[in-house]
Amino acid sequence: MHALDAATRLTRHSDDRLRGKTCPAYWNFGGPFGGVTAAILMRAVLESPSRQGDPVAITVNFTARIAEGEFDVAPRLVRAGRSTQHWYVELVQGDVVAANASIVLAVRSDTWAHQAARCPAVPPAQALAPLPTMNRNAFVQQFDFRFVDGPPQFKAAFDGQPSTARTEVWLNNAVPRPWDFAGLAVACDLFFGRIYFVQGTVFPIATVSLTAYFHVASDGVAALGDGSLLGVADAHIFEAGFFDQTAQLWSADGRLVATTTQIVNYRA
Amino acid sequence: MHALDAATRLTRHSDDRLRGKTCPAYWNFGGPFGGVTAAILMRAVLESPSRQGDPVAITVNFTARIAEGEFDVAPRLVRAGRSTQHWYVELVQGDVVAANASIVLAVRSDTWAHQAARCPAVPPAQALAPLPTMNRNAFVQQFDFRFVDGPPQFKAAFDGQPSTARTEVWLNNAVPRPWDFAGLAVACDLFFGRIYFVQGTVFPIATVSLTAYFHVASDGVAALGDGSLLGVADAHIFEAGFFDQTAQLWSADGRLVATTTQIVNYRA
Repeated sequence: MHALDAATRLTRHSDDRLRGKTCPAYWNFGGPFGGVTAAILMRAVLESPSRQGDPVAITVNFTARIAEGEFDVAPRLVRAGRSTQHWYVELVQGDVVAANASIVLAVRSDTWAHQAARCPAVPPAQALAPLPTMNRNAFVQQFDFRFVDGPPQFKAAFDGQPSTARTEVWLNNAVPRPWDFAGLAVACDLFFGRIYFVQGTVFPIATVSLTAYFHVASDGVAALGDGSLLGVADAHIFEAGFFDQTAQLWSADGRLVATTTQIVNYRA
Repeated sequence: MHALDAATRLTRHSDDRLRGKTCPAYWNFGGPFGGVTAAILMRAVLESPSRQGDPVAITVNFTARIAEGEFDVAPRLVRAGRSTQHWYVELVQGDVVAANASIVLAVRSDTWAHQAARCPAVPPAQALAPLPTMNRNAFVQQFDFRFVDGPPQFKAAFDGQPSTARTEVWLNNAVPRPWDFAGLAVACDLFFGRIYFVQGTVFPIATVSLTAYFHVASDGVAALGDGSLLGVADAHIFEAGFFDQTAQLWSADGRLVATTTQIVNYRA
């Protein structure tokens, strides 16, 4: 079993609760990597017998620090329409809600289509050097990052001159794994905090809320295989303890797979 | 009382439920304008005696058609940290959850700040022609839209040649109203569907989920007065019944007030 499947595995605990366990392989600064938490909440819905359709949108709120050990996940179908389902999911440890999510599923229909955004022209992943991941937080070592401008050189301290927040990076699991919606939810959180690039230094920060929209159905996800996805990330503003970031995930053949945004708490 | 305050007014119905009523002045194609629904969910939290801090993030899911008449709103404090609160709110008619929202509040702190995005250089609102709003859906008539490229000329049918999804537009209430977080939540949904601009024609569509991040605290909102805000909106993709849109709201003096994104269901 792939480490990501083990880290997001849930077993039925009661009629309305699933149970999972944190995984040291995906540890970040002070808790599990948020992308894995998003994938756990996603799997709770996708593996429900009531599921209908594929994910269109997910918003995950990181409400409390998740402690090492077991947690319960409670998915609730809030509303089912003809072709759309709205779910609300909580991840609970003891009496603390440590994360929650709203997830929209839909059975997609054939319509007029138009990709207004353009995939940037960049070298293929194989032509670029991977980011050395040794001595970094555990979760980083589970992935393959190939930055178009070369691996970032982080410094000990910010020199006061902000650099660009924008990066282009090929992303993949370090051990190849065919893409699915849980894997894409993980990838949507694989963009290092924009403040690291703007300040050129790395320190603990905390995503508060993450939203992702998926622009492909199951067949489009299957067509991605286990190849690298191109991520393009940027930020608008860093202000009074919170910065935003936005990102797109593109397939190697220039198809927009997902768009995502998050708001992150920092102290600097 | 301003029409927007009347349309979003809630009275206490029981210990954990508020009651409101839909307002014809803000009607859209087949129900209330989504921005007003977002503002109602926001007010339910902001007016709670347990409120601490200002809004940082809101995600609203439009889960069912809201019928004309009364509705209940049930806000729940999911998790309170030292400086952050996570709320979950449902809007209910009978036994149908017609909308829900997660809302993050925070007491902001003084930190290093950096506005990476640039406000576009555009003529002031007063120099531009307002969009004629007669004969449009009721809610449109409650606002003042001044498009930088002039009022859009919508056609009877799409000619097959996609135009740009990007617009710059000064936005305000038609009857001036000092900005507050409820008003900003409304403004985040004031960007007409991007498909109208790409196809050049107007038809019923339905926002499925909307997320907004606020980059100012209460004092920054008060400083906006009741002046127009510059909106910049765009879209990435229209595919299989869903398109996304992204937008920024800027103050007249070039400060980024909010960023927002939504996913919209269409049949075309």
